[in-house]
Amino acid sequence: GRVLVIGFGRFGQIVSQCLLAEGVGVTIIDNDVEMIQSAGRFGVHIYYGDGTRLDVLRAAGADQAEVIAVCVDDREAADRIVDIVQANMPNARLHVRAFDRVHAMALLRKSVAYEMRETLESAFAFGGRTLEALGVDQETVAALVADVRARDRQRLELQVQEGLYAGIELAGQKVEPEPLTDPNKPAKPLNPEAQDVLAHETEFSG
Amino acid sequence: GRVLVIGFGRFGQIVSQCLLAEGVGVTIIDNDVEMIQSAGRFGVHIYYGDGTRLDVLRAAGADQAEVIAVCVDDREAADRIVDIVQANMPNARLHVRAFDRVHAMALLRKSVAYEMRETLESAFAFGGRTLEALGVDQETVAALVADVRARDRQRLELQVQEGLYAGIELAGQKVEPEPLTDPNKPAKPLNPEAQDVLAHETEFSG
Repeated sequence: GRVLVIGFGRFGQIVSQCLLAEGVGVTIIDNDVEMIQSAGRFGVHIYYGDGTRLDVLRAAGADQAEVIAVCVDDREAADRIVDIVQANMPNARLHVRAFDRVHAMALLRKSVAYEMRETLESAFAFGGRTLEALGVDQETVAALVADVRARDRQRLELQVQEGLYAGIELAGQKVEPEPLTDPNKPAKPLNPEAQDVLAHETEFSG
Repeated sequence: GRVLVIGFGRFGQIVSQCLLAEGVGVTIIDNDVEMIQSAGRFGVHIYYGDGTRLDVLRAAGADQAEVIAVCVDDREAADRIVDIVQANMPNARLHVRAFDRVHAMALLRKSVAYEMRETLESAFAFGGRTLEALGVDQETVAALVADVRARDRQRLELQVQEGLYAGIELAGQKVEPEPLTDPNKPAKPLNPEAQDVLAHETEFSG
């Protein structure tokens, strides 16, 4: 297939649906029997095996694929595949499912061609639909979500470029989320327990 | 807040960013200290506690919220919140993060106002970007992804309406994924192990 999809769970199945709708040849690798059985209903080439092994990747045609789409539901496995591919197929184009912001930053530092945080776009759609439910018109919502998406991307690229958090993910730490628009009022704890937690935060981050 | 967001992880944070960008008042509930500390940087009302408890929901203002956005990273917890809200606040508008297709179907059967599968839209974006990398132009990709999304939605609503799988999620079973476009060729196993698994599938589903 022109695209090698590693991992045929919730994510890899939808990615494959998009590719198949355009008639693109797809090869999938998965080591879960249930996923392989699902794949039998799709017009794809199927390799049953461990996609984090070089011999399996090669046997499934990784050297010939135009895009290697890493869609596994496991950050460590995804990183392992990226490392193996970059070491052995330096010209491969890697598209990778990222777990969260920290993982996305690590992938960008490895210069993968494309990464997508696995819950990001669903959360944008959810936020947009919630604004519509509050009476904001569709056009305004679309512009607003596009703006938040662009700010988020800008911040991500800045963090990667500046290397502000270089290596932080190795320590198992988290990148602090930041508001992308200036909050016009401070956070307000609604119970004493929330107040306690916030007071500690001020102490620690001071 | 006009919107009560339960769960301030990867998903709830992005949802809140969208709402805050429009100046909408947001109250969040989370029982994870780290998440509460993150929320301290946003202009939100914060309730530290277990969002699956009626007293906590009430104390955080669930009765007054225009939308209750269930953004927890746990299917069972989400279902529990939906049940509690529907039993005690029958007029509440529920927007719910769904884990997968089976969960989405269960939520639609409970008549929540909105559900969004947590990885669906990121997978669509990933599939679209992969088609672009293969040389398909942006406009074609956008139309194609919109078409796959519409077919997927249609199939989901049909399955819910026909009650084809009513109760299946209770048994812990999975709904078989189906190709949304007709595969013009059969699936092709690339190694004997894949062939074995597919042969079994034919046996079992015959």
